[in-house]
Amino acid sequence: MVVDHTGRCLGLARSGGGNPISSGPDQAAAALAGSAGAALSAAGISPAAVEVVLLAVAGAGSPTHRGALTQRLAGLTDRPVFASDLLATFCSGTHRPDGYALIGGTGAAAIRVERGRQSAVADGLGWLLGDEGSGFSIGHRVARAALADLDGRGPATTLTGALRARLSVPAELAAREAAEAITRSLYAALPVRLADLAALAFDAAGDPVADGIVADAAQDLATTLRAVTSSDVAGPVVVGGGVLSNSVALREAALAAYAGQGPAPEAVVVRDGTVGTAVLALRHAGATVDEQVFRTLTTSIAAEPEPAPPAEPR
Amino acid sequence: MVVDHTGRCLGLARSGGGNPISSGPDQAAAALAGSAGAALSAAGISPAAVEVVLLAVAGAGSPTHRGALTQRLAGLTDRPVFASDLLATFCSGTHRPDGYALIGGTGAAAIRVERGRQSAVADGLGWLLGDEGSGFSIGHRVARAALADLDGRGPATTLTGALRARLSVPAELAAREAAEAITRSLYAALPVRLADLAALAFDAAGDPVADGIVADAAQDLATTLRAVTSSDVAGPVVVGGGVLSNSVALREAALAAYAGQGPAPEAVVVRDGTVGTAVLALRHAGATVDEQVFRTLTTSIAAEPEPAPPAEPR
Repeated sequence: MVVDHTGRCLGLARSGGGNPISSGPDQAAAALAGSAGAALSAAGISPAAVEVVLLAVAGAGSPTHRGALTQRLAGLTDRPVFASDLLATFCSGTHRPDGYALIGGTGAAAIRVERGRQSAVADGLGWLLGDEGSGFSIGHRVARAALADLDGRGPATTLTGALRARLSVPAELAAREAAEAITRSLYAALPVRLADLAALAFDAAGDPVADGIVADAAQDLATTLRAVTSSDVAGPVVVGGGVLSNSVALREAALAAYAGQGPAPEAVVVRDGTVGTAVLALRHAGATVDEQVFRTLTTSIAAEPEPAPPAEPR
Repeated sequence: MVVDHTGRCLGLARSGGGNPISSGPDQAAAALAGSAGAALSAAGISPAAVEVVLLAVAGAGSPTHRGALTQRLAGLTDRPVFASDLLATFCSGTHRPDGYALIGGTGAAAIRVERGRQSAVADGLGWLLGDEGSGFSIGHRVARAALADLDGRGPATTLTGALRARLSVPAELAAREAAEAITRSLYAALPVRLADLAALAFDAAGDPVADGIVADAAQDLATTLRAVTSSDVAGPVVVGGGVLSNSVALREAALAAYAGQGPAPEAVVVRDGTVGTAVLALRHAGATVDEQVFRTLTTSIAAEPEPAPPAEPR
């Protein structure tokens, strides 16, 4: 999006996946350049008139990825500024300088923010080695619970029928054959796509196995948030990411587990890091983002028509 | 290996991975043909003189894999017989017709055997969706436990130091940097290679986190074995696979969890499915494998010099 110093959004556009890790630097740079170009067109502004180009992308910590994106974005700017997508999520929820963000989407992570900077991070280590409590972890457990049920290794659960239906497993297949058909189907896709099955756990609320999966995820997210919590740093907990922003049950359980016997934290739910990316860009341009500018950003970005979804969602 | 009707081993050879799923049918067929040719040479027998060629391979249930291997093994035989590698493991431990096998290697599975045939199977669904209690599952938890420790999300464990040493993570890296270095290193390999880290859990016996990982794996293996147990079928439990045959601690814990309050099952530990493959081939050729033939097979195969390890272990 293109914003001015007062926080007014002048143009907003969306394209495909901009994560250089999952999409590769070429495709990510093309997506980023595509949406930036469309936003500039909508704003009626030329690239030369832009003060700061800031990108809040996953993998911004890697010099290799920064270099690859910088090279490929030369048509837009020769000095892109990179920021953490986790910090952008925090800044989508508040203009205050201190606090925490808990992100639960396909992956999961938490950060501590002090004086506007990310001072600690926990998890965010990817589907194979981390992302505890993420959409991936929930979907992964949904699949395993259904297979254990079919295999006689685990309790009966309504997740089994839901997964059979989702993957169109023929009803006449007996349990073990159905387990093998589900296995073949899921191995044919990228592992990370198991995150798409997280919705089955939320839809099955009331089923003890599904509820157990969601409760475990909430505990894991609370543990990740606790790992970055410092008694010296007070401030809101900004909660973001597709799974946490969509599932009230998971969000409330995670925040309750985090609070324990103590008072509930001040929580702010955000959908993504859009507003926060603008906050970071304005600050980089020397602007002060106070309550007024933050409110202008939030309302003017929300007033933009919903950008068309990317042609190929990732 | 090449065996005669009395159970005498005439030649034995080894080559690379023969699993058409993990190695692909071309490489698997080349490996199978290579070791068969070497065993025939050692035995001084021509392919034309061979009555039955039986292959006990993972993935034997898939007509696609059977077809691909059959086509590629035409120089050896035009009618290969395919058998389950799990059944071959069972038959490595006993000539009796009924019983169970529990296999814990990189993967994990259990079968029930009735009248010499595999009548039920549980798990064996691969590292992403099953293999509960396997070497992969143990190694996977070792990595996650060490990362959680470094991240402040989990308890301190000696596995962390062991993993840092194993992956040569520089001692000067602080906890979070070490976690990210470990993450990069492990994502650079195939996920299934996490199975190589299972040994760290056994080496760390006495560490509560490591012991918990091994205890959970034992429970999972017992659950898998229970899933195929029928009160109508008595017989030994043949225990095989690299992890279960090497780790006395895991094996004893799994069998104890399986027995529960009941009497300990009659367990037979085997290293692999070599003897059982010969048993199945002889039966297919119409021979009766009684106690005498089984003993001849076991002792003559054990007396063969250890075959050279494959050039490229898989």
